[in-house]
Amino acid sequence: MIRKAYIDMLQEKDVIFEQLEVARALARRFGEEQVFNFCIGSPSVPSPRAMTNALIDALETQPPSVLHSYSPSLGLPQARAAVAESLNTRYGSHYAAENIFMTVAAAGAIAHALRAVTEPGDEVLTFAPCFGEYQAYTAGAGLTLRVAPPTDTLQIDFDACEELFTPKTAAVLINSPNNPSGVVCSTAVIDRLAELLMRKSREFGHTIYLISDEPYREIVFRGVDAPFIANHYPHTLVCYSYSKALSIPGERIGYLAVNPECDGAEMILEICPQISRTLGQNGAPSLFQFILPRVSMETADLAVYERNRDILYRALREYGYACVEPGGTFYLFPRAPEPDAKAFCARAAQEHRLVLVPGDSFYCPGYFRVAYCVPTERVELALPIFRTLAQEYGLCGA
Amino acid sequence: MIRKAYIDMLQEKDVIFEQLEVARALARRFGEEQVFNFCIGSPSVPSPRAMTNALIDALETQPPSVLHSYSPSLGLPQARAAVAESLNTRYGSHYAAENIFMTVAAAGAIAHALRAVTEPGDEVLTFAPCFGEYQAYTAGAGLTLRVAPPTDTLQIDFDACEELFTPKTAAVLINSPNNPSGVVCSTAVIDRLAELLMRKSREFGHTIYLISDEPYREIVFRGVDAPFIANHYPHTLVCYSYSKALSIPGERIGYLAVNPECDGAEMILEICPQISRTLGQNGAPSLFQFILPRVSMETADLAVYERNRDILYRALREYGYACVEPGGTFYLFPRAPEPDAKAFCARAAQEHRLVLVPGDSFYCPGYFRVAYCVPTERVELALPIFRTLAQEYGLCGA
Repeated sequence: MIRKAYIDMLQEKDVIFEQLEVARALARRFGEEQVFNFCIGSPSVPSPRAMTNALIDALETQPPSVLHSYSPSLGLPQARAAVAESLNTRYGSHYAAENIFMTVAAAGAIAHALRAVTEPGDEVLTFAPCFGEYQAYTAGAGLTLRVAPPTDTLQIDFDACEELFTPKTAAVLINSPNNPSGVVCSTAVIDRLAELLMRKSREFGHTIYLISDEPYREIVFRGVDAPFIANHYPHTLVCYSYSKALSIPGERIGYLAVNPECDGAEMILEICPQISRTLGQNGAPSLFQFILPRVSMETADLAVYERNRDILYRALREYGYACVEPGGTFYLFPRAPEPDAKAFCARAAQEHRLVLVPGDSFYCPGYFRVAYCVPTERVELALPIFRTLAQEYGLCGA
Repeated sequence: MIRKAYIDMLQEKDVIFEQLEVARALARRFGEEQVFNFCIGSPSVPSPRAMTNALIDALETQPPSVLHSYSPSLGLPQARAAVAESLNTRYGSHYAAENIFMTVAAAGAIAHALRAVTEPGDEVLTFAPCFGEYQAYTAGAGLTLRVAPPTDTLQIDFDACEELFTPKTAAVLINSPNNPSGVVCSTAVIDRLAELLMRKSREFGHTIYLISDEPYREIVFRGVDAPFIANHYPHTLVCYSYSKALSIPGERIGYLAVNPECDGAEMILEICPQISRTLGQNGAPSLFQFILPRVSMETADLAVYERNRDILYRALREYGYACVEPGGTFYLFPRAPEPDAKAFCARAAQEHRLVLVPGDSFYCPGYFRVAYCVPTERVELALPIFRTLAQEYGLCGA
């Protein structure tokens, strides 16, 4: 009587988790220092001191009932107001507290967004490469995921994606800056996407929503054009997590921001607590909501990610890897030097203790993901391994 | 394109929330002190100082990466071990860390339990009076809820409930100590239920699981026989929240404890993270998991609830209300002095500023819930109102 659908899911192994197990097994055998674990997207920099201070301060000065009581089903009013204000300050948007729903991280926000603007059986379109969990997220909401292949530069292939729209397309799910590629959609790309969505909405006679998964929004490198997507398409639902910007992935705090100009904006917010009821997911943790007004404009010191990008991208290009330059995140997504990226990753791990993730799990076979959210010296120590692999595959001379 | 099922849910109004709005409106008009808000089950006593100290200590001494990183999908090993140990110490059970899955409160635990041991279309049986949210929980998992009426003393009516079992009954959902009645199932009752479940499992050729929703487990009054249910039926999934025992309902931390003797125990744990993926609900907040080993045997000072029960129960009986004596929780569930409990609650609120919840939303029309998780002086100040109402309805003399 154990539900079969979930047992079946055990077969589609979670590749990132498997690679993490590989890294752990290698660490047990050779020692932590001898393993180059580039497989997991877990922030390497500490949370900002201001956040820890805000937590301690709250715990020392506020009565527990203020900190730990039930928060209203849409979130603490002051947290929602802080989110709106921080968005408006950063991006010149026009959110009010009423447009914000506090969630259990971005995954919770996406779970609500996907259910809010679809009917079971509808289709959701997304762009490869993308986070493999989108498949579970959409299936769990009773939806079918359609994944458009990318261009050679890992950008949206508009011709390919246009063919995937059908009258059942209810929403498009986008992730920029992108996991696993680090690619950031430019203003021109987002405007073109907005135009396409407007046209398709008219064609099908219903609004196609844009669900924007933005946990890496604050990790954008110098000189990169990274538009705030909701400013370019009114029917946008922003799904955000503080996991990456504040280095608190374990705390599960994020939000859904519904563009006030979005079709049905009020109703979407109104039904979010109803969706929560069916998911058994009632609200973001209250202590972190309480301190949010003090940290909503803070970030961890994210500079290491750009330093690591600079070093790694330059070196990989020099060694002969085909690779698109990341504009943000802490990922890099080179083409594997053999068609089977899984075989390449297995070889990197077994022969060189370098643990990567094959692109297959991001709907992009033939690529591999390097998560460089590690101390810079670990990146530098790993370079000779990338070089050796390149030599072994004949990408560059010895 | 907003999902209709959720819009429809807005029609089945959340009565507790509505009554809370009534209380707030009255407070705005007459002042907070003039309103007797007995409608919400939010703990009135502060969290234990030991918990606040553990949080501050962790924040002051541990690197942020230790406190706020992703926890493993089943939970932090030390938190899982602390849960198992605290259960074994309190109840002589035999849980190991491997039997525990850390969740986003009891709602998250129930969401996983319901999905783990059923197939869509199955039936789940529960007992009135019960938490109204069970309807949304089961519907969200693709299940049908069947609610057995209680006996006159608000106990399980075994004859009535036996008729509701069908070959599609996959699980029974029980809540003892009970919200809204405060009634606690005795050892004899639980043993009789276990026997019935064994018999029905044999009859239908599949294991019927017992999902035990136990957020009030630590709030049991002196002299009350309150067995640990999983010790009496092997196929029990315990759904727990620290909300009530530690007075932290906003922090959303709880667990699912799968009896090691339960059919498919290992598989149930193994698929829980798969269920999380489809719900967009990945793990309990990490800071609270980190401190759990230091607070798993603590509770807030819960004595006020028993004091309030004593005062309120004695008085209501004296005034002529028909009422079953609560053995735990902070609820009391008297029969309304007129058949329409909604009308009675409306009158109590409008004429006396006493805010209660009609039993209709707990599958028990004709009753009303008094949530006495308030300071004792508020209970004492409310007694004349209960007496006046009793007089107005002719339950007792003037």
